[in-house]
Amino acid sequence: MSVYINAVETYLPGPIISNQELGNKIGFKPELIKKLFGNTGRHFAVNMNTGKPIASSAELITIVIKKLLSSSGISKERIDFIIVASATPDTLLPSSVNQACHAMGFRQIETYQIVSGCSGAVQALKLARELVAAPDNGLDNGLVIGVETAYKFLDIFDEHAGKKETKELVNYTLFGDGVGGCLLSNQSSASSIEIEHISFKYLGVDEVVGQLANWRGTRNDIDYGALLNEEYKLIEKLVPGITQDTINALTDKLGGRPDWLLPPQLSGSMLEKILSDIGYTADEVFSLVDEIGNTANAALFFQIKEFSDISLANECAIGISVESSRWLAGGLILRNRKGLL
Amino acid sequence: MSVYINAVETYLPGPIISNQELGNKIGFKPELIKKLFGNTGRHFAVNMNTGKPIASSAELITIVIKKLLSSSGISKERIDFIIVASATPDTLLPSSVNQACHAMGFRQIETYQIVSGCSGAVQALKLARELVAAPDNGLDNGLVIGVETAYKFLDIFDEHAGKKETKELVNYTLFGDGVGGCLLSNQSSASSIEIEHISFKYLGVDEVVGQLANWRGTRNDIDYGALLNEEYKLIEKLVPGITQDTINALTDKLGGRPDWLLPPQLSGSMLEKILSDIGYTADEVFSLVDEIGNTANAALFFQIKEFSDISLANECAIGISVESSRWLAGGLILRNRKGLL
Repeated sequence: MSVYINAVETYLPGPIISNQELGNKIGFKPELIKKLFGNTGRHFAVNMNTGKPIASSAELITIVIKKLLSSSGISKERIDFIIVASATPDTLLPSSVNQACHAMGFRQIETYQIVSGCSGAVQALKLARELVAAPDNGLDNGLVIGVETAYKFLDIFDEHAGKKETKELVNYTLFGDGVGGCLLSNQSSASSIEIEHISFKYLGVDEVVGQLANWRGTRNDIDYGALLNEEYKLIEKLVPGITQDTINALTDKLGGRPDWLLPPQLSGSMLEKILSDIGYTADEVFSLVDEIGNTANAALFFQIKEFSDISLANECAIGISVESSRWLAGGLILRNRKGLL
Repeated sequence: MSVYINAVETYLPGPIISNQELGNKIGFKPELIKKLFGNTGRHFAVNMNTGKPIASSAELITIVIKKLLSSSGISKERIDFIIVASATPDTLLPSSVNQACHAMGFRQIETYQIVSGCSGAVQALKLARELVAAPDNGLDNGLVIGVETAYKFLDIFDEHAGKKETKELVNYTLFGDGVGGCLLSNQSSASSIEIEHISFKYLGVDEVVGQLANWRGTRNDIDYGALLNEEYKLIEKLVPGITQDTINALTDKLGGRPDWLLPPQLSGSMLEKILSDIGYTADEVFSLVDEIGNTANAALFFQIKEFSDISLANECAIGISVESSRWLAGGLILRNRKGLL
C-alpha cells in the first residue's frame, strides 16, 4: 500500500541567535564558528539573557500538531497515532508526546516516543509508514514529529559553572532547537509527497561513540563524567563515507540520480565536504544546517518541507540521516505527487 | 498474519533486597512497606553497600538477548530488529539498545528505543507485531525487550543528601530493576505463544500526572524540582477502574473469561485491590510484583514467562499494563500454542 505525507510543518522557537551573540556568551571566537563548522545561526528555546526556557518539547510538539491539523484540514479525531522522536525529552516520564496530547485534548490515541539522535526522524517515519501501510489495523492517519529543546544542556547562564572542555563547547556551536512533523496517511491528497522507500539500520561500525548526551538523576554521589561529548574529528572522518554508502544504496533503489538531495545536517562545513565528495552541487540540495544548526530529530522535516514547497510535480528526492552516537544511518526516497493523484 | 512469541526470557540483577534491608537504608519502617504496598522484595542493579552499579541497562539488554538467542536456537544474523522500552535509559545518546548491539557484534539491524513507563512493553510488542505481520518488508524476527536500572535515582548512598519527601521515598519501596524480553516471529515454533490481539492507548484522562521521573542536564542554575514523584493515592483511586475497563474490552474481544490474567504490576496491595474488584482469585493470576517490585517496562515479560512456563496447550491469558504518568493503558490476548502448530 502506498503511503503519503499529506502535510509537513516546522517551527523554530525564539529569535535567531547569531555567531556573534553565541560566541560572546560561550567564550568562543564568533568568526571561528563559521570558519570551523560553517554555521551562521541557530535557535534555542530559551531566553538568551535570563536562561529561562521559552518553550518545552511538549509545547513545541503542540505547536506543530496544531499547524499540521490546520494545514491538512484533518480533525484531531481522525488522527490514529502520534510518534515523536527526540534526544531531549522534557522528562523521562511522562513522555512529551503524552503531555502534548493532554494539552490538545486528544483521547484514545496511540502514542509513542522514541529516544534517539539524528536518525530518529527516519526511525519514526519508518515505523509510521509500516503502521499506516498495514491493512485492517485501524491506523490510517498518523503524525510523525521530531523535536529538540536542549535548554538543560545549555550551561552558559551560570557564572559559577566551571570551564568547559572544547568537546563539550563544540555542541553549543553545532546544535539548535526546533520542531518539525508531518501527517502520514494511506490516502493521498492534492498535496501528497509519496514515501517510495525508507530504510534505517544500526550499522555495526567498530568505533568509539561519536556523540554522547548523558543525564543525571537524583544522586550526586556518582561521577557522571562529561554529560555532552562530540568526537568531531571522528565524525568528520566517518560520516562522509557512511553518507556515500547510503546514497549509493538509495540511488540503486531509485534507479538513477534524484532531482533533489536532503543530506545529513551535521554542520555547514560537513555539508560542503559531503557534497564535494559525492559530486552534488548546492542547487540540487535542500539543507538548512548552516542557518539553523543541527536540529537533530527535527532536521529532516525542515528539509522535507523545502522539498514539498519547492519541487515540481513528479520530482523525487533522496534524504539521508546519519547518527554518530553508536553509528546509525537511514534514508528515504520521496516523490512529489502534487496534482498527480 | 499470525504473530508468535517463540521465546521469552527474564533476568534480575544482584541479590534480592528485603524490606528489612531497604527500610533500614531509606529510613522507612520495613513492616510498613509490606503493610502499605504489599511488596516483600526487589532487585536493584547496584551494590547496596557501596552504591556502585553492578549492571547498566545496556548490559541487562545484552544478557537477555543472549538468553533469547540461546533458548530459541536462532542465530543473531536472523534477527531483523530490536525494540527496547525503558524509563531509565543509561544515556540519552547513544541508546542502550545500540550499546547492546555493539557489545553483541550485531550489524545492519533495525533498532528502536522507546522511552515510556509501565505501558512501554505493550507499546513495543504492538509495534513489533505490526513489523513482523507485514508481508514483504523483510522483517520476520524481532526481539522486544523491557529494561529498568534506576541506579541514578537511588539516592540512598550519599550521607550529604537532603531528607526526602515521602512522595519520592515511596518510589524506592515500589520499584525494582530487571529486564525481560521475547522473540517475536511470523513463523511458529514448537513452543509458540500466539499474540491474538494487542492494543494500547493514551486515554485522555483529565487528571494530574500520576508518576513523574525527571532528568538533569549540565545546568545547575535551574530548579529541577522533585525529580521523582508518585501520586500514590490518585493511582490507587484511578488504576482499578482503568484496569477493569481494559479487561472488559479484552474479554469482549476474547468472547469470554480468560484462563489466566496478567494484571498491572504497580504493587502487591494494588494487585489485591484490583483482583477483589474484578472478581479474580490469586490462582488465576500470574504476578510477581509483590516479590520483585514494579519493574515497569520489564514487568510484563516476567508475567508472559510464567504463562509460557505454566499454562497448558490452548489456554489463553489476558495481560494489562496501566501507566499512570499521563494515564495510558494497553493489553493483549495470548494463547499457548505449544505443540499445536
